[in-house]
Amino acid sequence: MTTLVFGHKSPDTDSTGSPIVWAWYLDHMGVKAEARLLGTPNTEALFVAKRWGYDLPPVISDVEDGQKVVIVDTNNPAELPANINNADIQAIIDHHKLVGGLETKGPIEITIRPLACTATLMYQMMGGHAGHAPDAIKGLMLSCILSDTLEFRSPTTTSVDRQIAERLAADLGVDIPSYAAEMFEAKSDVSAFSDAELLRMDSKEYSVGGKELRVSVLETTAPKIVLDRKESLMRSMTDVAKEDGADQVLLFVVDILREEATLLVPNELVKSIAEKSFGAKVDGDSVVLPGIMSRKKQIIPALKI
Amino acid sequence: MTTLVFGHKSPDTDSTGSPIVWAWYLDHMGVKAEARLLGTPNTEALFVAKRWGYDLPPVISDVEDGQKVVIVDTNNPAELPANINNADIQAIIDHHKLVGGLETKGPIEITIRPLACTATLMYQMMGGHAGHAPDAIKGLMLSCILSDTLEFRSPTTTSVDRQIAERLAADLGVDIPSYAAEMFEAKSDVSAFSDAELLRMDSKEYSVGGKELRVSVLETTAPKIVLDRKESLMRSMTDVAKEDGADQVLLFVVDILREEATLLVPNELVKSIAEKSFGAKVDGDSVVLPGIMSRKKQIIPALKI
Repeated sequence: MTTLVFGHKSPDTDSTGSPIVWAWYLDHMGVKAEARLLGTPNTEALFVAKRWGYDLPPVISDVEDGQKVVIVDTNNPAELPANINNADIQAIIDHHKLVGGLETKGPIEITIRPLACTATLMYQMMGGHAGHAPDAIKGLMLSCILSDTLEFRSPTTTSVDRQIAERLAADLGVDIPSYAAEMFEAKSDVSAFSDAELLRMDSKEYSVGGKELRVSVLETTAPKIVLDRKESLMRSMTDVAKEDGADQVLLFVVDILREEATLLVPNELVKSIAEKSFGAKVDGDSVVLPGIMSRKKQIIPALKI
Repeated sequence: MTTLVFGHKSPDTDSTGSPIVWAWYLDHMGVKAEARLLGTPNTEALFVAKRWGYDLPPVISDVEDGQKVVIVDTNNPAELPANINNADIQAIIDHHKLVGGLETKGPIEITIRPLACTATLMYQMMGGHAGHAPDAIKGLMLSCILSDTLEFRSPTTTSVDRQIAERLAADLGVDIPSYAAEMFEAKSDVSAFSDAELLRMDSKEYSVGGKELRVSVLETTAPKIVLDRKESLMRSMTDVAKEDGADQVLLFVVDILREEATLLVPNELVKSIAEKSFGAKVDGDSVVLPGIMSRKKQIIPALKI
């Protein structure tokens, strides 16, 4: 049986590229494996796949009972197919906090590390094999790391992520600043997306003080494109929250180059969250949060209601 | 702050020795760490600690909010202190199936592998440092592996467990068969324990077909000592089940040398479980199950009600 390798339901570059990387490695080690997607990748992931000559993996909506799977870049059942606990989970490779809820039928290989990127961990786990990977696989790993670290600007970046990215770039003869700029430009091209799509593109739900918050992040080098749509984005939040069973959508527009986030403030609840969580002084329908770039490291730990 | 390293609430040799091993390693790497126990170790663990010159770690009943901890040999909150999800969990090192229920505040180091023993995984994780460990630490690692693999007889044994144990024994000049015999003799000396203590000594609860089963295993080279107490052990099962909120206690007396288990059969429910799960023909108040040695690999996956 072919093992299916996939990330989470809102595929960014890491959740699109890492499954392709690990499927290559498993195949290389004699285990028949193929990558899958659980949703439509963002524009950066599309650019990266094309740049390194890959077709996008097929999108699947669920997994069969007993299907062999490897889960990467998440351990959260809410971000995985509904039937995941009836699949035959072979391994989990992740860099997020343990959420609880996934169960396995027997002992399996679980490797979670506090690194910025799944691909960094995969590079480590491959040992000597990483050096023998085809250029296209190395290119995907480099892209995943640059994406997740926002070219080493994100506070989630560790020295390991940086060293491995620099080694990969040197192997490939890729100039990191200019390649990262191309990636971020691709990610910033969000004109084709509806407001609801933008609000859900890179979004995770969290319970904070009894409220369900959908915490959405848009990382961009061109925040103006998004902020020009501020009014309609804020109007769309009510519907998105209702449809997704959340109390409120929080949209953080992260300016990668200025290293700051703009939080949209549609109502008193979000105003209060901005003030209590980030000590921000809110005056109007948005607020700039200097230095805030990482949901995992800066936004979620700070959220108070 | 000192990091506390502990295993589960029913400390066998692996759950007693591995915390001492990892606390040594953390200390060796510059992280102040100490081992703790969550219960009274079994007689084999007592023998092993003494044999390698260790005092038993202090027993703790819970952990404070924010206490730095490393969890080894389990990922099951039911086998851990009540306040575990408010502790600051630094790492999990385990070889059991993922149960779900543990949560961490941020991404941490989680390493789970389908090996027979936590100490085997620790040896691998230490890399070159394992070779420089003091003899007493090597002795603990060897003891953990021999205990969890029943001297390589258990079907959970992997070639990695065996190779590492043999390397440790060679380093230490320990003869495996005679040392393992001493360990198993210590484990078999259960005369000091009450029936209820024996039923709870190495015991885990599982939900099977809507019933809560407390699945207890006694590994021994002298099954007669236990089986001579069959009647009073069966009488004690009702009280133990009631006190622990279980529907039934199943006691498997594993004969390490003959590589078989004897299941006590106090009533029709257990008779039916024995027949459906193991295809056994039950005639009387116990039944021998040839080849059955591992709860994890053979008993739990087979249980039907």
